[in-house]
Amino acid sequence: MDNFEFFSPTRFVFGRGAESRTGELVRKYGGTKVLLHFGGGSVKANGVYDKVVAALTAADVAYVPLGGVQPNPRSGLVREGIALCRREKVDFVLAVGGGSVIDSAKAIAFGTLYDGDFADFYHGKDVKRPTPVPRALPIGTVLTIAAAGSEGSGNSVITLEPGEFKRAATGDALRPMFSILNPEFTFTLPAYQTACGATDMFAHVVERYFTTTRDVWVSDELCEGIMRTIVTASRRVLAAPQDYEARANLMWAGTLAHNNVCGAGRAQDWASHGIEHELSALYGCAHGAGLAVVMPAWMAYVKDADIGRVAQFAAKVFAVPEGDPAAMAQEGIARYRAWLHEIGMPTTFAELGAKREDIPALVAKLGLNGNTLGTFMSLTDADVIKILESCC
Amino acid sequence: MDNFEFFSPTRFVFGRGAESRTGELVRKYGGTKVLLHFGGGSVKANGVYDKVVAALTAADVAYVPLGGVQPNPRSGLVREGIALCRREKVDFVLAVGGGSVIDSAKAIAFGTLYDGDFADFYHGKDVKRPTPVPRALPIGTVLTIAAAGSEGSGNSVITLEPGEFKRAATGDALRPMFSILNPEFTFTLPAYQTACGATDMFAHVVERYFTTTRDVWVSDELCEGIMRTIVTASRRVLAAPQDYEARANLMWAGTLAHNNVCGAGRAQDWASHGIEHELSALYGCAHGAGLAVVMPAWMAYVKDADIGRVAQFAAKVFAVPEGDPAAMAQEGIARYRAWLHEIGMPTTFAELGAKREDIPALVAKLGLNGNTLGTFMSLTDADVIKILESCC
Repeated sequence: MDNFEFFSPTRFVFGRGAESRTGELVRKYGGTKVLLHFGGGSVKANGVYDKVVAALTAADVAYVPLGGVQPNPRSGLVREGIALCRREKVDFVLAVGGGSVIDSAKAIAFGTLYDGDFADFYHGKDVKRPTPVPRALPIGTVLTIAAAGSEGSGNSVITLEPGEFKRAATGDALRPMFSILNPEFTFTLPAYQTACGATDMFAHVVERYFTTTRDVWVSDELCEGIMRTIVTASRRVLAAPQDYEARANLMWAGTLAHNNVCGAGRAQDWASHGIEHELSALYGCAHGAGLAVVMPAWMAYVKDADIGRVAQFAAKVFAVPEGDPAAMAQEGIARYRAWLHEIGMPTTFAELGAKREDIPALVAKLGLNGNTLGTFMSLTDADVIKILESCC
Repeated sequence: MDNFEFFSPTRFVFGRGAESRTGELVRKYGGTKVLLHFGGGSVKANGVYDKVVAALTAADVAYVPLGGVQPNPRSGLVREGIALCRREKVDFVLAVGGGSVIDSAKAIAFGTLYDGDFADFYHGKDVKRPTPVPRALPIGTVLTIAAAGSEGSGNSVITLEPGEFKRAATGDALRPMFSILNPEFTFTLPAYQTACGATDMFAHVVERYFTTTRDVWVSDELCEGIMRTIVTASRRVLAAPQDYEARANLMWAGTLAHNNVCGAGRAQDWASHGIEHELSALYGCAHGAGLAVVMPAWMAYVKDADIGRVAQFAAKVFAVPEGDPAAMAQEGIARYRAWLHEIGMPTTFAELGAKREDIPALVAKLGLNGNTLGTFMSLTDADVIKILESCC
C-alpha cells in the first residue's frame, strides 16, 4: 500500500426531503447571501429550484440566481459568476444540479477570492502534481444527477474558451461543505443521462482499480463492491426509473466512487478521463458517453501491462469464471462493453458521432508535449492515437 | 435505504514516516501547546513517543505529557487531564496510542471546555439518542493499535468511577482533526492485542451489517469487503507480525470499519457492544476478547429475526456454499467462532475468566430499566441473560 492522505470532510445529507435543510446548512457554514447556481430549466420544471429557494428563505438566507450552466461548463459563465459574486458581495456558492453545475460553482467560488485569472489554476493532463487552489468561498450542493461525484470531490473541470481546452483544478478548498442528496430528484432524469451517469461513476472506480500498487486488498474490495452496485443499480433504475432503492444505491455509489475512499493507498490512472475530456470538449457529447467509448478501448489496449488485474476485474465485477487470465480479461472487457450497450451507451466513434479524421487534433489538444499519460501503462501520443483508432 | 447524514471530516495521514507531520498538523489546526496523552510504557519503549516529540519540537509546538491511560480508560485520569489542560492553558489534545488513549483524550478535550462534570454527557446503552457534546478542544491522534476505530469516530467510551459504569459520549466535536496511521507502529504489538483489535473492528462492521433496513446494497458490499479483509489480514499479521502490507490493510480496515461509511443509510444494532462493555468494565478484560465471547452468542440467539441476513453473512464473509438458509447461518456462525479461535480469542465465559454467577449483576449494570437493547432483535433483560448463559 502506498502512503496516502485521505480527507473527505463534506457533510453528506442523504434522503427524501433532505433539501429542506439547505438554508440551515448554509447558515451553519457562515453563509448569509448565496450565489444560487444552476443549469437549464429542469430544476425549475421539476420543482427542485422552488424547494431550495423555500429552504433558503425559511432560514433568512438571501440569494442571487445564476442559471445557464451547460454540460461541459464554460469559462465564460464562470467569469460572469465571479463578477456577480463580487458585485453582490456573495459569501457562499450553492450549486443546484449535476457535475457541470457543481464544477462551475467551484470555479466561481475560487475565482471570486483570487486576484488573478481563475484559469491560472486549471491545468492540462500532463501536469502530474497540479498546484491546489489556495482558498475559495464555501460551497454547498444540491445534487440532481448521480454521476460526476463532484459533490464529494476536491476537483473542478472547466472548458476554457476560446480553444475548447477542458482543464481541471484541485484543492481541499474546492470540497463542498455540505452536499444534499435526495434520490427522488433523479426520478425524472432521462434514461440516456442516467446511463451516462452510471458510466461515469463506474469509470471513476476503474481509474482507481487499475493500479500498479500491490496488496491494497481493502480498497480492491471497496472498488469491486461499488462497481457491482453500479451495474446492478443501473439496470434496475433503467427498468423502473422511480425505484427509490435503486436510485438511492446508485446515487450513494456515485459519491463513494469519487470521494477517493476507493483510491486510498494506490496509484491511480486517469488516462481515460484525460482522453475523453477532449472528445466531449470537441463534440459536446456527454462525458459519460465519451467514456463508454474510450474506457473499454483503453482497457483492451493496456491489459497486458497486468493481465492478472484485468482478469480479477472480470471475475469480481462481471462474474467471469476463473481460467486463463488472458481469456478472462477478454471476456471481462466484452461483458463491460455489453453492459454499456445494454444501458444505451455508445461504444464506438460512429455511435458517438466522432470522426476518425479528428484524432490528430484531439491528441494535439490533449497537450502531452512529449510527456506520457497514465500509470497502469504510460501512454505516448502514439498510444493514444492507437486507442482512439481502435474505437473507429 | 434510510435517510442518513454521513460526516467524516478527519484528515487521515497514512503510511511509513507519517508521524513526522505531527507538529505541522497540530499547527494547521491552531494548536500551540498540546496535552500529549498516552498509555503505559510501550510508546516510550518502541520509540514512537520520541518521534512524536521530535515532530512537535520541530514545529515549535509546546507539550505537556500525561501518561498512564489504562485499557478501558477511567474517569479519574480524565479529571486529572482536564485540570492539567486548564492549568497549563493547553489548546490541543494529542493522543498517542490506541482506542483507550484516544477515548480518554476526547473526554479531556471536551471536559476542558465544559463548565459542568464531563460525565454529564456519558450515557448508558438505554439512551437511543444521546445529546452530542457541544464543543471540545481540537484533537489529533497518532494511532498505535488497529482496533477501536476511535481515530475516525465521534465517540468516546469511559469507565466512570466509582461503580465501574462503562458509558459513551458522541458528537462531531469529538472527531479528530487528523489521525496519523503508520502501520509500522503495530509491528511490535503482541499477538493477543493484535487479535483483540481484529475482533473489535470486525464487530464494528457486524453491528452495522445486521440491519433491519432493506436494499442497502452498496453498504452491504462495503461491509462484506471489509470483513473479508479483516479475516485475511488478521491471519497474515499473526503469521508474520512485520508484514507491512497485511498490517496496513488491517489498520485502514479498522478505520473504515468505524468511521460509519459501512453504516450509512441503515439501522444499526449495537447490542453486542453494549453487553460486552459490562464484561470488560467488571473483569478488566480486553474489549476485543469480550466481544469474541458475546458477539457469536448474540448472533446465534437473534438469527431467526432474519435468517436470510445471517445466511448472506455466512456466504459472503466465510464462503459458506449456498443452501438452506438456516444451515448456512449455523455454519457461518461456526466459521466465525473458528476464526476467532484460530487467532487466539476466547469464545466462552470460562476462557475469558468470567463467571456465570455474575450474570445478574452484569445485566443490572447494563441499566436497561425496562427498555430494550438493539434493533435487529429488541433484547430485554431476559434475552441478555439467555445470551450470556449461552456463553457459559
